[in-house]
Formats: sequence, C-alpha cells, structure tokens
Amino acid sequence: MELEFISWLQKQMPRAASVPLGIGDDAAVLELQSGRQCVLATDMLMDGVHFQLNDCGPALAGRKALAVNLSDLAAMAAEPRGALVSLALPKATPLTFAEQLIEGMGPLAEQFGCPLIGGDTNRWQGPLVINVCVVGEPAAGGCWTRSGGQAGDAILVSGQLGGSLQGRHLRFDPRVAEALALQAAFEVHAATDISDGLLRDLAHVTEASGCGAVVDLNAIPISPDAAASPRSDDHRSGLQAALYDGEDFELLIALPAGEAERLLAEKGSLLWTRIGQLQSKRGIWTNDSIPRPLEPGGYEH
Amino acid sequence: MELEFISWLQKQMPRAASVPLGIGDDAAVLELQSGRQCVLATDMLMDGVHFQLNDCGPALAGRKALAVNLSDLAAMAAEPRGALVSLALPKATPLTFAEQLIEGMGPLAEQFGCPLIGGDTNRWQGPLVINVCVVGEPAAGGCWTRSGGQAGDAILVSGQLGGSLQGRHLRFDPRVAEALALQAAFEVHAATDISDGLLRDLAHVTEASGCGAVVDLNAIPISPDAAASPRSDDHRSGLQAALYDGEDFELLIALPAGEAERLLAEKGSLLWTRIGQLQSKRGIWTNDSIPRPLEPGGYEH
Repeated sequence: MELEFISWLQKQMPRAASVPLGIGDDAAVLELQSGRQCVLATDMLMDGVHFQLNDCGPALAGRKALAVNLSDLAAMAAEPRGALVSLALPKATPLTFAEQLIEGMGPLAEQFGCPLIGGDTNRWQGPLVINVCVVGEPAAGGCWTRSGGQAGDAILVSGQLGGSLQGRHLRFDPRVAEALALQAAFEVHAATDISDGLLRDLAHVTEASGCGAVVDLNAIPISPDAAASPRSDDHRSGLQAALYDGEDFELLIALPAGEAERLLAEKGSLLWTRIGQLQSKRGIWTNDSIPRPLEPGGYEH
Repeated sequence: MELEFISWLQKQMPRAASVPLGIGDDAAVLELQSGRQCVLATDMLMDGVHFQLNDCGPALAGRKALAVNLSDLAAMAAEPRGALVSLALPKATPLTFAEQLIEGMGPLAEQFGCPLIGGDTNRWQGPLVINVCVVGEPAAGGCWTRSGGQAGDAILVSGQLGGSLQGRHLRFDPRVAEALALQAAFEVHAATDISDGLLRDLAHVTEASGCGAVVDLNAIPISPDAAASPRSDDHRSGLQAALYDGEDFELLIALPAGEAERLLAEKGSLLWTRIGQLQSKRGIWTNDSIPRPLEPGGYEH
C-alpha cells in the first residue's frame, strides 16, 4: 500500500523549484532562498512493528529510531546536522523511560554530529511511538539519488545481508562515514539503503533509474544471522533471507564498472561486494545461462 | 512531565555553534554551513488525544497536524518552506483514508507555500498517529524567540481565546501571514503561540525572558466558544476558559509599549488586543489594586 500511496502523493504534489528532490527517495532535498540545500528524512517507529519494547527496552528503541534516519542520510551522501524527536509515550511510563530512550540516541548523535535540536513529547493510552526527523546538508559533491543508475553500472552492497531481526536491526551502525568517504573519492550514480529487502530496494533503484538489473546470486554476502532468521520457519535458505529480509540498513550503490573495480581493489575494502550490474532490459534477473526473473517481494512491515 | 523532560533534555544537549536555538522554544533554528539558517518544528498528534477520529474524520485530523506546525513557524516569524508527514495508519483503513488525510492539508500547504516534501507511511494495530515536521526560513529581520521580552513591554494576543475544543482547534487559521506582516513592520521582543493555555504560554515567555507579567483580566478577548467550553462543567467561566483552555493557536507577543500603540492604532487592527505588560517582578499577577498571583495551570494534553 505504501508504494501506491507514494505514487498518489507524487501526482498530487506539483514540482516546486525549491524542492529539487521530493517524495520517493531516501530523503528530500529542499533548496533555501540562499540557494543552499538541506536534506530531510523522517521515519516513524512503533512498538510491536519496528521493535518489541518489552524485549529491547527504551534505549535500543531510541537508538534504532535515530539510526534508521541516519541511514537515510547516508543513502543520500548527506552530512547529518540535527534531529527532531517526537514521542507518544505510554501513560504509565516514568520520566526515566523517556530519558533512557533519548540516552539511547546519544552515542550515534555524538558520533555523527547530529544533536537533538527539537521535538514534541506526548502521553497517551497507546503503545510507544517514536518519530525522528533528521536534517542534513549535501556533501561537497552533491547528493546521491536512486534515479541516476545507468546500464552497465556495477551494483555493490556494503556489509552482509539477512537475519537482521536476530538483533542487528537494533544495533546496526548507519553507514554515514562510509557513504561520505565514498562520495568524496568515487563517482556513484545511484544509491539507497537496504531497508525493505535487497531485491525490493534494488527495484526502487532500477525503477527510478529507468533500467533493470542482473544479479549474481552466488555473490550475495549472506550474514551469519541469516540462517537463523526467524522467518526461516518457512524453509527459506540464508540466501532468501539475504534477498528479502530487509532492515539490514546497508548501502546499495550503482557506479561505473571501472569505479567499482577501483573501489574493490582498495586496501581494506572488505566492506563492499559486487552483486551484479544494471542493464537496459527492465526487471531483475539472475545471471544464469537462462536468466530467471527475480521477484522483488521483500519484507513489508 | 513535559516541562521536566525538556529541562532534562536541555541539560543533556551541549550548546552547539550550529544550533543558535535548540530545545525549548516553538521551533529550533539550525545554522547550515553557508551561515544560512533554517527553522524546524515538529508535532505529533494522536487519535483520542489531539483529535477524535470518529468525530472529525481523516481530512480535519490531517489539517490540524499541519496547522499546529505552521503555528509554531508563525510564532518564530519564519516563512514555511516544506513539510514531512509520518503516519501510523490503523490496519483496517483503505488507501482513500490516507489520501483524505493528506488532502486535508492541501489548502494550508498551498496558502502558505509549504508543500509536502517527504514522509513515512506505516500500518499497525494501534490508533492513528500523525507526525508533521515543518521546515522554514527566518524572515528578513530574523526569528522571534520566547526569550527576548523586557520589563515594560506590552503583551498582545491575536484573536479570541477559549473553547477551542468546540471545533476551532480543527479549523483554525495559523497566524503565519499576520506574524510575517508584523515582523516586517514592528519591533517584537518575544513571541509564542497559545497552545497550552494563555497563562501557561505567557509563563513560558516570562520564564524564558527572566521577567514577570501583569495581566488585565478585563481585557482578555474571550471567544464566543468559551462559554460553551466542554470544560465548563466544572463551573468555569468564559474567562477561565480563555485563560486555561489552550489549543487557541493565536499569537502572544511582547513588544515595546510605543510599538504596541502604533500597532493598535493601525486601521483594521481588530486582530490584536493588549492584555497586560511584562514587569521585572517574577510571576504572573492581576492588575488589581492588590495584585493577585495567577497560576499558569493551563491545559496539558
């Protein structure tokens, strides 16, 4: 339903000159009157959907709420500047609960220069809801988008995929520093973060870029967590977890083949894995001798 | 509890040079690397707390969510530039529900040049939650804050107060245009919007400004809705509703007495009423021959 709604929204909203990038990417870009751009992302996390408060407690819930927003800025190659946090707190929770939630954000806020600059606090009868909105600025070379991919581009992912719900989704490190380092030294055509599942997020890039992709299933970096994915009860393999689980919050990038080679040849480049390439033929396909289509049906919350 | 939490937050957050105005005002001011400032506010509205979805429907709930954020920008004399909307939609609602909610924001978004530029859509078992984050830019003369009030300043309010829950809280016009017109032509020392109740919001200004206030209870502009306030069942008068109800989303400003006279003498200045003045003695007092203290115990959600 979200995709259908986003599509409806995009039709509703006239393109404004002050909004170089509106609805439908990892973040929005707003041009201020000075010509200076700021980058904005927001995510709402609810108890029972994005975290289980009874299991993880307020600090990890708060940490995740900031981390997923920082991951959106990373996917844009934007430098974080500040965060606004809105809370709907369950009636019975003491003040220390809210404090722990905010303290859970502290290390990430400090590490990435993203102080809490404002927010809104409420109480109600319902479960905990956390909304974070982050503001960033484009790095010197400008923002990445999902839409700049070109046929022939190599597709790379950071880290390892699958089984994030084993616990990594609460503790992952948003790839802000990696994105900014990459943006400063390499030509990247398109980027997103892997939140909905590798194939689904790849489809976001191919559809926005007006192309397709071929994926080498043997190359997918499968997390050790993937085999123990709670969704493996339907006999899915680790590979399937890596393709579909989502919430990895790793980066997915498309860049010229030569740039990819240069990146992968770098010392200490263990972070990046080449998993395929963009092609002009639409859809996402295996690289078998007889290519099979891959359905992007990843995880939806 | 919110004030205590905000106080805790303010102690947690070191003052950063890039955040000229952080937690505790109507909005935050963030300085970008260009030196250009942007103004950010956020509010979360929950079904059963800030609106009754069964009574008002999604369009008015959406309208209110944007309007209260625009009111925060008005209180800062900031020009709206864009909004991000996060939704937690009840599982059973159809796509048209979300569309109606967004369409309810449309007229205000258009009127004040505040397009929807991004957001996040979720579904869950809980009630509707709407979070809006707005981005603005300071008007040419710079932002208003709560903290610039000076003893001797006249205190003025826009419009009429009390009984907002009769329906006005869903349909009020945020005072964006009025604030910007005022900011362009008058010297205003401090401002806020009346969301928590006149006396409570006045106390926010006096406490931030390090002063007190004397209020002329006979001068308070009482809304016709105030007499019919749903809270009048505890035998409160219209005046009490005007002092404590909250959710009026009118402006409260403090400005030099001469500037106030000039404003009130303007043709068509029906909007503004002088209700008292700031004084060096702390607390909020009546202007009786023997001044009585006024407790700011306004409405908390």
